[in-house]
This record gives sequence, C-alpha cells and structure tokens, in this order.
Amino acid sequence: MCVHSLEKLLEAVKGGELSIEEALLKIKHYPFEDMEFAKIDHHRSLRVGYPEVIYGERKTTEQIVQITQKLLDKENNILVTRASLEAYEAIHRLYPEAKYNELGRTITIEKEVLSPPPSYIAILAAGTSDLYVVEEAYETAKILGNDVKKIVDVGVAGIHRLFAHLEVIQNAKVVIVIAGMEGALASVVGGLVDKPVIAVPTSVGYGASFGGVAALLSMLNSCASGVSVVNIDNGFGAAYNASIINHL
Amino acid sequence: MCVHSLEKLLEAVKGGELSIEEALLKIKHYPFEDMEFAKIDHHRSLRVGYPEVIYGERKTTEQIVQITQKLLDKENNILVTRASLEAYEAIHRLYPEAKYNELGRTITIEKEVLSPPPSYIAILAAGTSDLYVVEEAYETAKILGNDVKKIVDVGVAGIHRLFAHLEVIQNAKVVIVIAGMEGALASVVGGLVDKPVIAVPTSVGYGASFGGVAALLSMLNSCASGVSVVNIDNGFGAAYNASIINHL
Amino acid sequence: MCVHSLEKLLEAVKGGELSIEEALLKIKHYPFEDMEFAKIDHHRSLRVGYPEVIYGERKTTEQIVQITQKLLDKENNILVTRASLEAYEAIHRLYPEAKYNELGRTITIEKEVLSPPPSYIAILAAGTSDLYVVEEAYETAKILGNDVKKIVDVGVAGIHRLFAHLEVIQNAKVVIVIAGMEGALASVVGGLVDKPVIAVPTSVGYGASFGGVAALLSMLNSCASGVSVVNIDNGFGAAYNASIINHL
Amino acid sequence: MCVHSLEKLLEAVKGGELSIEEALLKIKHYPFEDMEFAKIDHHRSLRVGYPEVIYGERKTTEQIVQITQKLLDKENNILVTRASLEAYEAIHRLYPEAKYNELGRTITIEKEVLSPPPSYIAILAAGTSDLYVVEEAYETAKILGNDVKKIVDVGVAGIHRLFAHLEVIQNAKVVIVIAGMEGALASVVGGLVDKPVIAVPTSVGYGASFGGVAALLSMLNSCASGVSVVNIDNGFGAAYNASIINHL
Amino acid sequence: MCVHSLEKLLEAVKGGELSIEEALLKIKHYPFEDMEFAKIDHHRSLRVGYPEVIYGERKTTEQIVQITQKLLDKENNILVTRASLEAYEAIHRLYPEAKYNELGRTITIEKEVLSPPPSYIAILAAGTSDLYVVEEAYETAKILGNDVKKIVDVGVAGIHRLFAHLEVIQNAKVVIVIAGMEGALASVVGGLVDKPVIAVPTSVGYGASFGGVAALLSMLNSCASGVSVVNIDNGFGAAYNASIINHL
Amino acid sequence: MCVHSLEKLLEAVKGGELSIEEALLKIKHYPFEDMEFAKIDHHRSLRVGYPEVIYGERKTTEQIVQITQKLLDKENNILVTRASLEAYEAIHRLYPEAKYNELGRTITIEKEVLSPPPSYIAILAAGTSDLYVVEEAYETAKILGNDVKKIVDVGVAGIHRLFAHLEVIQNAKVVIVIAGMEGALASVVGGLVDKPVIAVPTSVGYGASFGGVAALLSMLNSCASGVSVVNIDNGFGAAYNASIINHL
Amino acid sequence: MCVHSLEKLLEAVKGGELSIEEALLKIKHYPFEDMEFAKIDHHRSLRVGYPEVIYGERKTTEQIVQITQKLLDKENNILVTRASLEAYEAIHRLYPEAKYNELGRTITIEKEVLSPPPSYIAILAAGTSDLYVVEEAYETAKILGNDVKKIVDVGVAGIHRLFAHLEVIQNAKVVIVIAGMEGALASVVGGLVDKPVIAVPTSVGYGASFGGVAALLSMLNSCASGVSVVNIDNGFGAAYNASIINHL
Amino acid sequence: MCVHSLEKLLEAVKGGELSIEEALLKIKHYPFEDMEFAKIDHHRSLRVGYPEVIYGERKTTEQIVQITQKLLDKENNILVTRASLEAYEAIHRLYPEAKYNELGRTITIEKEVLSPPPSYIAILAAGTSDLYVVEEAYETAKILGNDVKKIVDVGVAGIHRLFAHLEVIQNAKVVIVIAGMEGALASVVGGLVDKPVIAVPTSVGYGASFGGVAALLSMLNSCASGVSVVNIDNGFGAAYNASIINHL
Repeated sequence: MCVHSLEKLLEAVKGGELSIEEALLKIKHYPFEDMEFAKIDHHRSLRVGYPEVIYGERKTTEQIVQITQKLLDKENNILVTRASLEAYEAIHRLYPEAKYNELGRTITIEKEVLSPPPSYIAILAAGTSDLYVVEEAYETAKILGNDVKKIVDVGVAGIHRLFAHLEVIQNAKVVIVIAGMEGALASVVGGLVDKPVIAVPTSVGYGASFGGVAALLSMLNSCASGVSVVNIDNGFGAAYNASIINHL
Repeated sequence: MCVHSLEKLLEAVKGGELSIEEALLKIKHYPFEDMEFAKIDHHRSLRVGYPEVIYGERKTTEQIVQITQKLLDKENNILVTRASLEAYEAIHRLYPEAKYNELGRTITIEKEVLSPPPSYIAILAAGTSDLYVVEEAYETAKILGNDVKKIVDVGVAGIHRLFAHLEVIQNAKVVIVIAGMEGALASVVGGLVDKPVIAVPTSVGYGASFGGVAALLSMLNSCASGVSVVNIDNGFGAAYNASIINHL
Repeated sequence: MCVHSLEKLLEAVKGGELSIEEALLKIKHYPFEDMEFAKIDHHRSLRVGYPEVIYGERKTTEQIVQITQKLLDKENNILVTRASLEAYEAIHRLYPEAKYNELGRTITIEKEVLSPPPSYIAILAAGTSDLYVVEEAYETAKILGNDVKKIVDVGVAGIHRLFAHLEVIQNAKVVIVIAGMEGALASVVGGLVDKPVIAVPTSVGYGASFGGVAALLSMLNSCASGVSVVNIDNGFGAAYNASIINHL
Repeated sequence: MCVHSLEKLLEAVKGGELSIEEALLKIKHYPFEDMEFAKIDHHRSLRVGYPEVIYGERKTTEQIVQITQKLLDKENNILVTRASLEAYEAIHRLYPEAKYNELGRTITIEKEVLSPPPSYIAILAAGTSDLYVVEEAYETAKILGNDVKKIVDVGVAGIHRLFAHLEVIQNAKVVIVIAGMEGALASVVGGLVDKPVIAVPTSVGYGASFGGVAALLSMLNSCASGVSVVNIDNGFGAAYNASIINHL
Repeated sequence: MCVHSLEKLLEAVKGGELSIEEALLKIKHYPFEDMEFAKIDHHRSLRVGYPEVIYGERKTTEQIVQITQKLLDKENNILVTRASLEAYEAIHRLYPEAKYNELGRTITIEKEVLSPPPSYIAILAAGTSDLYVVEEAYETAKILGNDVKKIVDVGVAGIHRLFAHLEVIQNAKVVIVIAGMEGALASVVGGLVDKPVIAVPTSVGYGASFGGVAALLSMLNSCASGVSVVNIDNGFGAAYNASIINHL
Repeated sequence: MCVHSLEKLLEAVKGGELSIEEALLKIKHYPFEDMEFAKIDHHRSLRVGYPEVIYGERKTTEQIVQITQKLLDKENNILVTRASLEAYEAIHRLYPEAKYNELGRTITIEKEVLSPPPSYIAILAAGTSDLYVVEEAYETAKILGNDVKKIVDVGVAGIHRLFAHLEVIQNAKVVIVIAGMEGALASVVGGLVDKPVIAVPTSVGYGASFGGVAALLSMLNSCASGVSVVNIDNGFGAAYNASIINHL
Repeated sequence: MCVHSLEKLLEAVKGGELSIEEALLKIKHYPFEDMEFAKIDHHRSLRVGYPEVIYGERKTTEQIVQITQKLLDKENNILVTRASLEAYEAIHRLYPEAKYNELGRTITIEKEVLSPPPSYIAILAAGTSDLYVVEEAYETAKILGNDVKKIVDVGVAGIHRLFAHLEVIQNAKVVIVIAGMEGALASVVGGLVDKPVIAVPTSVGYGASFGGVAALLSMLNSCASGVSVVNIDNGFGAAYNASIINHL
Repeated sequence: MCVHSLEKLLEAVKGGELSIEEALLKIKHYPFEDMEFAKIDHHRSLRVGYPEVIYGERKTTEQIVQITQKLLDKENNILVTRASLEAYEAIHRLYPEAKYNELGRTITIEKEVLSPPPSYIAILAAGTSDLYVVEEAYETAKILGNDVKKIVDVGVAGIHRLFAHLEVIQNAKVVIVIAGMEGALASVVGGLVDKPVIAVPTSVGYGASFGGVAALLSMLNSCASGVSVVNIDNGFGAAYNASIINHL
C-alpha cells in the first residue's frame, strides 16, 4: 500500500506532475507506520524459522487455537507457554504433530527443525521441585534451535553434587541456573564458570520465600560477577536470552 | 540534511537518472531518525513558548547553567525544578531576570509571558508543611501560562476549613490536591467537585507514612471516581498535567 | 422538607410569632444535613443523565438487583462494574434492555442516550490480556456519553505497532493507557502526545509483577510529564476521569 | 491445692515443727504458677458475665463444639468469631438458643444478658461492602453489654451523608470507624468528635489496597489526634476495646 | 459575622422588606463555612483550656514563633511537638514561662492549669531508649490535664520487672505502652489489665526492625483483645487519645 | 569405586607402569566428586540412622513413593514433611509400619529406633491454632531421636499459663517457641531461660500478620539475647536444629 | 525486704499473733514482684561472671558511663555494644583496663576471666566488609568465655577458599556465618557441617540488598536444615546464642 | 606445593616406602584446598590479563592501597569500583599511571592493554543523571578489553532520540541499557534488537521510585524476551557480564 503510493508519487515527480517541493512535503507527511517498518523490523525478517511465541496465561483455549492457526499459515514453528492440557488437546486435534510438555506446560509445533550451533546451553536446577521451570526453559531452548544439557538437584546444601557436573557446566557456552528458596546456587555457579550465567528465581518455597522474592533478591545481589537475572519462574525468558547468546 | 538528500533523490528521479524502483529502495533505507522527526515531533513544534524544563536533582550548578544557556538561545522560557540556591545564584549572575522560589526550589526565566486561558487551576494543600510541593506546582503552572488559586491548610481533620473554600474549588477547571500523612483530602475533594482532580501525595509525615507511601496508597484507592495520582512530591508533574487540561 | 420548615420559620418571624433571637437559635440548630445539601450537591443536580454506578464486588446478586431497581426509579442510566454473569441474568430478567460485557464484567442499562462531545477518548492497551480492563473502561466511557477509539496490542516490545496508530492517538482529547507487566507503554505514549494521559496498571504478569505493582510503580515514575495514574485494574476510574476531561 | 499446702506449712510453723528459716526457703520454692494466679488474674475474676471468646478460624467444627461445651459449664456467655455456618449448625443442635450472624460470621449464646451502661458505642462504616466487619463488631459489642448505633454507607466521597448523622456520632461515648479502600473516614470523623475513635481498616478494595494495607496506613497516619487503630478486618478487637471504654 | 447578617435578614423578613422566597434563597446560598461552624465545631468551643498543638517538624523557628504568638492571643495553653532547642530558645525569649523537654522535644506554655480528673494514665516503656517517646506522651498528657504515672525499662525479656509494677498498671484508667524492637510489651500488658491499652511502636532497633515496622506489626497483631495502636513514635497521639479516655 | 581406581593407579605407579608425571596428571583430572566426598561427607557417614527427609510439597504421590522406596533400600528411617493423606495411603499400602501425623502432615517410617540423649527438647506454642507446626516439629524431633515435651496454648495474653510450666521449660536443653500473630512468646521465653531458644513464626493470623511476617519480624527483633529464628511455619527446621543441639 | 516481712509474718504465726487464715490472706496479697524473683531469676543467679551488656545505641556517653559504674559495683564483666569512640574514652579515663574494638564498636571490661569450655565457636564471614559484625560477635563470644576461631573472606563466589578451612569449620561446636549481599554462605556451610549454624545477615551491599533484607531472606529460606537466623548485623545476638550452645 | 607433596607420595609408593593403603589414606586426607584448585580454578588461570577487581565501598583508603599493592605484584590490571577521590590520590602517589573516573568512581591501572574482539558493546542510558552508572560500566568494559559505544539521553519520553541511534544499537554484539525512574528503555530496546540486552536499573528518581525498585521491577517484567537484569546501579556487573558475552 505504502510502497504503491510512494511509487505513484515518484512517477508523478518523474512525469513532472508534481514539483519536488510538493513531493518533499508529501513524503514528510507519509504515515509513519509505513515508513519505518523496513528499518525497525529488519532484524525480525532475518529470524526465519524462529518460533512465534504465545503466552497462554489468561487466554482461552479458543483464542490460543485461533492465534496458532493464523501463525501456522506463515510456516512458523509454534511455542505456547503456560498452556493448559485442554488447550493442548484442542490444538492436537487440528495438528497431530503438536507436542505437550506437561511439567513445563508448553505446546510446541516444529514445522522446521533448526540446526543448532555446535555449542550448548547448560540448564541447572537446585531441586526436583524446580522442574516446571526447567522444562519451560528446555522446550524454549530446543525449539529455538539449541543443544541443551540438563542437570537437576544440585542445590548448595549438598555442594558435592554440583561439583560432580563441573566439567559439563564449565564447557557450556551459557549457563541457566534455576533455584527457589534462597537461590544460592546462582552465586556458587557464577563463581565456578567464566560464561554468562542467567539466573531464574523460582517460586518454590514457603513463608519468607514470598513466592520467589527471596531467591530473586539473592540472585540480584550475587557476589559472583557474571550473573544476570530474569523474572521469577521465567524459564522461557532465560532460555530465549541464552539462545541469543548461544547463537552469537 | 535529510531534506536535502531527499530533494536530490527526487531530482534524480525527475531527471531520469534514478529508476523508480531504485528510488523506492533508497527511501526505504533512509536513516530512520531523519524521516520520523517530522511526524513524531509535529505536536512539539506547536507548543511554542512552552518552557524547557530542567530537572535539577543530581545536576551540578555548572551543568544547569550550561543547559540553561543553550536553551535560552531558542528564546524559550526556562523552568528548573529541584534547584539549589547556589544554582540560582549562578544563573542570576548571568540572567538578572531569573527568579527563585526558595520553598518550591524552582528557578524561572520568563522570556515570553504566555496568556492564560480564562479558566483557572485550583491548588489545595492539607497543611503548611506541604508548601514545598504547592510552590513547585504553582511555579510550574504559572510559567506554563495558567491562572492559579492556592488554598492551603484545609486538611480533613478540620473539614469546615475546606468547606469555606468550596466555591473556589468547584469553579476551577482542574483541581490539584496536595497532601501527606493519610492523604484523605483527595477523596473528600474528589467527592465535592465534578472536575478532574490530580492528587499529589507528599512525603510529609513520619513512621508508617513511609516517606509518602501511605498518602500515595490512600490516593490510589480513593473512593471518589475522578481522582488520578502522580508520584510522591511531584508538584511539577501535577501542574504540567493540570496545565494540559486547563488549555484543552 | 428542610425548605418547608425554614419557610415556616420565616413566616413565623414575619408574623411576629417568633423573635429574631429565637429564630437565630433555631437556624443554628437545624439539622446540618438539610442545610448543606443545596451547596454541596449543587454540582450533582446538574449531572442529570449520568449513570449511577454500582460496584458489584462483594455484593450478592440480590443486593445488586435491589439497588438497580431503586436507582431506575429515578430514570437514571445504570452501570454495574465487576458484575458476575449471574447478576446480569437476574437483572436481565427484569430489564431486558440490560446489556452485559462479559470481558469487562459490566452491566449497563441505558435509559437515556447521552450525546457525546465532538472530541473522543483513545483507549490504548499493551496486550490482549489487558482486554478485561479495556472493556471496563470502554463501557464506562460509553455510558458516560463519550466517543471512544480502542487500540489494543501496541506494547513497547514491538513499538512499530504503536506508531501505526499515532494519528488516532494524537488527535484524541484524552488518552487512557492500559498496561501490565512493566507498564512502559504509558511513558512512551506520554512522550508522543500533548494530551492528558491517564495510565491504568493491570495485574497482568507473574512473579515480580506483584499483581500489578511493577506496572503501577513504572507509571508513577514516568519520565513523561503529562501522565497521571489510577489504581491497578481500575478501568472504570480511568474512564470516569477521562470522561470529565472530555466534557470540559 | 496451693492454698492447702501453704496452710499446712503455716500450721507446721505454728506448731514449731518447722523453723522459720526452713519455712522461708520452702515458700521461696513454691511452684510459681500457684502463687501468682491470685494477683494476675484478680481482675479476671471480677469480669463475671463476660463472654468467653473463641477464635473460630483454623478450628474444626468438632473443636469449636468441644470448647463451647466446656465453657458453658462455667455459665459463661459465648462468642465465636470467624465461625462457619457448619460450626453454627452443630452448636445449634446442642444449644437451640445459639444465634448466628451470617454476615459477621459470629455465633453467640447469651446465658446472662448484661445490662449496658447508659452511654452507647457508635459504629460507622464507609460502605455496604464493609458490613462483614460491622456485624462482627456489633455482635461483640452487644454480647459484652453495650448499646450500639450503626451508621453505614457514609464514605467520604459523599461527605454530606456523614454530616446527616453528626449528632448521633458526636453523642456516642466511643466511635468505631470501619473503612476499606483509602480509609479516609477515620480522619474525617476524628476531626468532628472529641471522643476516642477506634479505626478498623478493612480488606475491601483491590489492586493497591493490598488487602487493607492502604486503609491501615491511612488510619495510622491520621491527621486527627484522637484516632487509634486495630488490625485489618478486626471488628472484634475494635468492639472489645470500645466496650472497655464504654464501661469506664 | 454570619450571625449578624442572618439577624439582619430575619429583621428584613420581619419588616416585610424581604419576601420569604427571597429569604429562603439567600439562606441557601449563605457561605457554607459560616453556617456550619456552630454545629461542627460545637464540641470544640467546649474544650476551653485545651492546648493548641503545633507540629514543629518541617516548620522554621520563625513560623513556630508566629503561630505561637497568634494562639496565645486566645489565652490558650500551647504545646509544640517535635520542636528544636533553637525554636524553644526563640519562644523562651518572648515567653519566659515556656518550658522545654529536651528528650521529648516539646515546648509547653501553660496559661491555665487544667485540674485533672481523679483517675490517672499509666505510661509504660520497654527500655530507656524509648524515653524520647515517653516524654512526648508525658508532656502531652500533662498539659491536657491528666495525672500520669511513668514506668520505664520493663521490657518482656525481664518480665519480673513488669510484674513489680502490676498494681500501678492495673489501677490506671488507661495504659499507654511504648516499645520498639519486637514490641511484645503491648500484648503482655494487654493480657494483664482490663483497661484500654494504647500501644506506641517506636523506631528503636536496627536491621529487621525497619524503623519501627516490626513493633508496629507486632502490636497490630496483638493476641490481647484490648489493644489499639497509633503511628510509630507517636507519643503525642497516644497521650491525646488517652486523655480523651481519662476525661470520659 | 573411586577408591578402587585410585588404588589401581597407585599400584601402576608402584609397578612402574605409570610414571609419576602421568599419575600426577591423572589425579588432577580425577572426577572431582569422587575426590572430595571423603572429606566433605565425612560427617554424613557418621550420622547412621538419621532419617532421610523428603520435602513433600510440589511432589506427586508417585514421586514420593519412588523416592521412599529408593531410600528404604539403604535401611534408613524416613521422614516425609508436608505430605498429603493420599501420599500416606500409597506408602502405607507398601509399608504398613508407616505412620501419618495428620495435623503435622508428616509420614514417618522408623526402621531403627534411635536412643535419645538424656536431655529433652521443649516445644512451646502460643495457641492451639499453631498445632500444625508443633506436630511437624514433634515428629521431626522424635524420628531424629529426641525426648520431647510439648506445651501448647501458653500465649502471652495470659502469661500465668506460661509460668505454670516454667520448670519444664527451664530444664530443657533447648527450647522451640512456636507462635503466630505478634510472636511475643519468643521474647518472653527468651528472657526466662538460659538455653538456646529457636523461634518459629507461624502464618496464624490475618490482616497485618501478612502470613507470618509480623511474627517473623517480632522474633528477629527479640530483645532477649538467646533467640534465633527459622522460616515461617518451619517446624521441621526448628526441630532439626534443636536435635543437633540436643545431641551435642 | 520481702524476706524480712515474710519472716516477721511467720514469727507472728508461730507466736500465735496471726491466725493461719489471716496469714494465708496476707501472703496471697504480697507484692508479686517480691514473691517471684526467687524462681524467675534462679537461673540468672547461676550465671555469675556473665557480663552485663549495655546496648550503646541512642545512649549518651554520660548515660553509658553511669550504667557502667553501677554495674561494676557488682563485680561484673562489662560489654558495651554499638559504642562510640567517645564513650570508650570517657570510660577509659575511669577504668584504664577498658578495651575498645574499633571495628566491632565494643567496649569490654573483664574483671573476671571466665575459663572457656574445651570446644570452640567458629566465626565465618563472606567478605572483609563484614568485619564490623565479625568483631562484635568475636568480642561478645570472648567475654562470655569462649574460644573462637575466625575465618574471613570465604564468600561463595570463590568456594575453594571456603573448603580450605573445612576442617576448622567442621570441628567447631557451633558455627556463626556472617554474610551480606546474597548471604549464600549460610546454606553452603549448613550443608557441610552437622553442627548448629547461626546465620547473621549483614547490611553490606547496595540496591536490591535493601540494607540486608536480601541476605536475611536468603538465610531464612536456607535449603540446609541446621541453620537458624538472627537480626541483620546482630553479631552480639549470634555470639550470645553460640556461647549458650558452646557451654551446654 | 601440593603437586610437590603428591609427587613425593607417589615416589614413596613407587619406592615401596609407602603401602598403597597408607597412600590411599593420605590422599583422602590431603588438604582439600590444594587438591581442588586445579579443577575449580582452571578457568581462572586462562584469564591472564583480566583485572583484579576491588569493591571500594566500606574499605578505608589504607586497605585499598594495600590490596592494590599486593595485586600489582602479580602484574595484573587493577579496577577499583566505588572508589573515593581520596583513595585515588593515595594510589596515584604510588602509581602515577593510575586513572580516576570521577563520575564513575573507578580507579584503573592498566599494566597490559588487552586487545578487544572486533565486536563492540553498546551502553545506552535514559538520562544524563544516569551517567554515574554509565561510567562505571564503561571503565569496567574498557579494562576488560572491549570496544564500547556510549549513547546517553535516549529516554523513552522522547523516543525519536533513541531511533536516531538504531543502527549503532542493532550492530552491537551485546547491549547494556541503563535507566532509572520507570526503566522503560530496557523493554523498548529489547523489542528493537536481537542481541542480549543487560538492563541496569538506577537509583535515579524520587518518591515511588524507591531508590531504583520501580525501574528494577519494570525491567524484570519486561515484555521483551531478550532482557536480563542486574542489581540497581550495578554498572560493573552489567559490563562484566557483557564482556564475557562479547568475548564468546
């Protein structure tokens, strides 16, 4: 549309029907939105194969199905986070290739398998109760085209369990550390590796954990230098971030 | 610059040195920043005479003086908020017409006196200790070109004092209510007028006032429907907002 | 009633049955409530046609029906906010013209359609999950007699979507910005328009969004000057406020 | 028991079987608990007729019934707060004179009707949604032997409604003010009476009311001098306190 | 003034110079403030001898002196709270009878000594570091015309110290309990007396006392029924409240 | 395993099949986890008979059963905390000796009864509503091999009830104090004993108890010197801690 | 005094001047404070040599000197915490044996050197910036008669530094862990020892450490079972607690 | 050292002076710290040239000088953060090559200039008042061997300023976004680039910014997927993290 009207304008200039002054004025008043999309979204157009992500929370099954259908027209991979089993079943009826990770509450439809870079993402978690975040991060990292190594139940109260995996951790390109309660694992891991550590506080805990605030504050105050933090339970965000780094 | 290069492009199109396809491509890749200023800032160019506002906090006297000098080149009115006496004295040496409101901590230089609309802004405050916010709001409203009526010491603990000014309050086009401690004045005034009420919590109080949080929460939860709220002690923001409404 | 007894008193004075001293004393002891309503509520009597608003939360269906019936006697328009489907159905049985906005959870009965002013209110929302607040604001604005333009899903993470609507936004008389999570949309819009912006934080989000607190604080600290804020999820309050401004 | 053994000891001293030194030593080592009850609980023994209060929250119906049975043996009045309908029904089967206030969630059994003092307690509430606290306070005050006047729906957003009841409020011996949202009613009433005002914040509200915190802070920061505060939704505590004052 | 003009109006009605209709209209439009003071402030006029209270915080010495001078014209007693030594010295130069309580930071000028009721107020404090609040409460209670008994350093960590004063505490008409840190004293005292207990949390403490919040929350959650609470460090408010009760 | 491979290595060195340089290199690259267990976990190997503890929250019945089965292979005692009745029933089908404490929500399987030290742990609780924490602490202390004395309903509002048990409290080796609401019991007990006091705030309360935060802050600010604190509702942690002390 | 009057009473009983009934009555009304001290403070009388502790914060030098003088009359050791240099100098002039720990801000006067038990207390700190708390704990532990081993700068970001001291840590009878920022050290140490761990959060840090709250929450949520916590910066309380345990 | 003693042990085994059993036992008891450094710190030994970082807060000038001297012996680059001018001057006297960034409060001594990778780090800041964090980040990134492009004053209230730099931002390998107040810049930038964005909230602001909490929460809740967050004002941590990524 915009391109078309610009084309007409240029033809009018060429044909002398429009003076340059008039043309300048018109271009200045062109709808902003048409002008700028080329530049702003230039980087998006390069990310072919990247999944479209649907945040399933507060969306009805019907809405999720509709959005999924629309997105699949563009041949995209699909990732629905915080998805209910019911939403999965509705999608599965339409797209039998859809997969559900019950713990991580993700639906994925992988139309194009992305070839991952040679390096890998390590996902560490303090306890088995953090698994729901681990799985969200795992599914996100996989569909974004990454090799992932998961190491669970390496909380700091039994620190020898962590050291048993030191080599795998230190050889990752980027490390995701998932922990609830006091979230100390992020600092300990941050002190053992020289790779970016993305810390995810979880809402695992009770009382003064305040739904993950204790772990969040702990991670933000980490005495280890290479640690950055995402929102409580945000396994998706951590993995998205890690994937960007893993693809650098 | 941008205009110049666009002009050249159009001339090249006109002269046939550039095909329309090539021209379209070039325009799409024009530096965004040059393109968009016309549209985005269109509304700004209409606000001639509006003061340039300098937030004085965390700025050195030297920085404030430099910014002031630069802005005065454009023949603007100047408002410096949260300004120290020292900053004022430095500016006053250069611009003897500069004025200082010690309580409100504002410096103003009024190069062009804006003619206010016929309506006025009412500024109410619960106590004399809220005066530092009243004065910041007052100076802001004045230099933005508004008539202002100030009514101070009308806290709800002696509600008859408020009623004594009911007519002035109800005839304003917009009302700013400034209160610390429990901030109840906003709700009471909100129930008495059918004009927009902009509430400013102040940090006046101690203990469980938590630096203005008690008043802030009180105002956000106002049971009166026409009340909106700005940040604690933000007399400037309230007056800026009120001025927009008063000029509608 | 009050007027009547006052009339009698004056007649008694006129007729000499009551001394001036006695009359003075009596007037001083007149029930306060009768005396003052004339003045205090003067502005209310001008607001004919304005809806009576019922806050449905923590009210039983029976209570809501009773209040509605009582208010309809006065030929008022009715707006029930935070209303359950059950409450709607009960009212609908009595008043078939009642309408329910399921997303916004509002019941409206429009006995008299108010003719709106020529200007309009723009309601912007960052995401589709904020729609429940959008709809509450929309229904409120409509029944208060306003033209409204809704623009949804213009969150700052894809800012070009916002710019596509710039003209509609900038031409509104007042703009309502509804956003959860980090609430950044308010600041961005506040920087693009010179109209009053009323920001509504929503409880959309999780973890460190703390039920809308993150968005609330973000909006209160907006670096854009013309932004004021209402309570979390308070679409009604924002629209009520906007309506006052739109009718100025 | 203790008295008995003391008696024996004194007899032994009298009879010369026990030296004074030995007696002194023995008294010093008497079980503390037996010694002190006389003094500490002296005031309790004077409060005959006062109800025994059972906090019903987190207690099973069975537990509440058992405690009630045990207490009724002492011919006491009974007040169960935060009681479920189920608990009431179980008690009602055993004690048909038991009464249930559904809104206030109280069960009362009045074995002895206390004659109230001539003065009365005024209970004010900002809105009808605060009624659950009003009723808890009301039942508490009644069974403690007080005359009570209830005035509901006098929130500050329509302050003339409050003034209509000024006389009743000012003639009370003590005033309970119950309000949620911004809790401003406490300050306004505190400025209108010279009686002790006990403020009860309620959890009525949403968003930044934080379950009653906004009202609580507002009341703690009241600019009116005679206001003290109890816990959020604590109608029982306010009435207990008011009853003590009303009986002074 | 108001009375005078009303008188004239009535005379005009009597003399037939003013029709009853016109008189009614005029009365309705009488300045509200003149009308209502009789009623609203009726209780104030009875409180002859009550001190005028000046909150000294954020007021300059000059302002405090001016307000004091104005108030003394009305032959009132004066109480300045949160007053600096400098403010005292300035007032002392003008009124040699002014007294300063350095710990409590109060200035008092007692023009008329009020005769206290036969009952007394007990002021208890947990530690010597709470003395600044004790003294503010003491001076307030004294100038409001009360007998006061002070008992300091009876914190719960050495509970026998408290019991040593049990009789004095139990015989008071109202008890003020002042405590910082964990504020447990209020609950213990509340369980020992059947008089109203007004609890004052103090900002004494460090770390997780959060400037008195720990004590405040502790007192609001007191398991003893007769305890109400005022703001952190608000010795004045507690004493004002206690004085009202002591004069009932 | 590790010992075995080290042994082989040393034999190879001894037999000359491995040079010292090679051996050094190999030892340096030995899996860390094997190296360090001797030292780090030395203290664990001494704790034979100690139960394995399973935190049941957020674990499915199936997971709990599986972990229990695995642990029982090692002849350990089992303690499952925060366990549902359903989880108990599943375990009970497999291990009829399993016991369930419904109030404390613990499952215990005691394969080896530990002989307790001669001293005992005293568990005090303010009210019957704190019993769920008392029972968790009790079961933990018992299976860890401790004699325990429970004293419930000794809240500070009736302090004579506490004194009745003074001897039992003062003769304990370590005291656990469990209290919700204002948590004052910890300070009072801390002032009466010269044994370590471990305070457990509970989430019992409402309004400004903020789910146990009031009690937590109260206990952290205890004016008694020998009090330390664990997380809200953490009966397990308190008892574990007390058991360590009781076994010293 | 009390003993004397009791003696007299017993003599009167013995001599027949007082009937047993009369004597019983009199004893019941004896001043409580005299009666109970024997029992309540029995344990205190056993703690000969224990220092008297003066909390120096908010006390003037004069007050500290006076209290010190009074306490020294009883031949006690003295510990002043949070003491200024000025306070020390004033005390030093009177008692040249007084010592000052500048970092820990403690004054100590050791009249009787207590012989410590054979076991020791280990004090660990994450960083050198935590030294002010370490020293307060150290001085407290020393004057209470304990051997102490200090290990500083063993934060979890370089966890090998901690392991270098494992033997000293594991052989202590009780371990104090002092850490600011994210406070993770407490969990790591708690997982390595089977001794009671007393965690002290410090206010070291900035931003989201919120003056020690991050470390406090982290420690309260420790996934290691044997960790209990004291107030932020409360080195004294931790050492007092540890000393009780070390003397068990 | 450790290697040496291990060598000796192996020689003794080889020479038959030590049995394998004895050798095993000895290895098990080797000082842990010597054993493990090879593994744990392997990655550190690769980071030759990396600066030693000294956190200057709460350290005396003397301490900073001493640590600096010790570290320079190892030929390291030095970075002191949060350093006072006084500390700089003391270091500058000893090491004239030391440089001070007054705004960023950093001291740097660059013994070895690290050659940066070809990619660069972009540092964006919302306002000039955020410069103190920008400079800390800048100095950190530079001494860690990175090319850096700084873009300041691109706050979202004037979003066209940001777009003017879009190309520089999108071509960076990693972007640091520094913003106070509402911190919205992080989300806007996160939506414009496909590189990792590290957000640094600053304490710039007042009132409800709560020392940077508003910006922190805003950034943690960013609706843009690639954003991770560090502590408030933590320019060092952001740059350290960015440097790791830039060197990947």
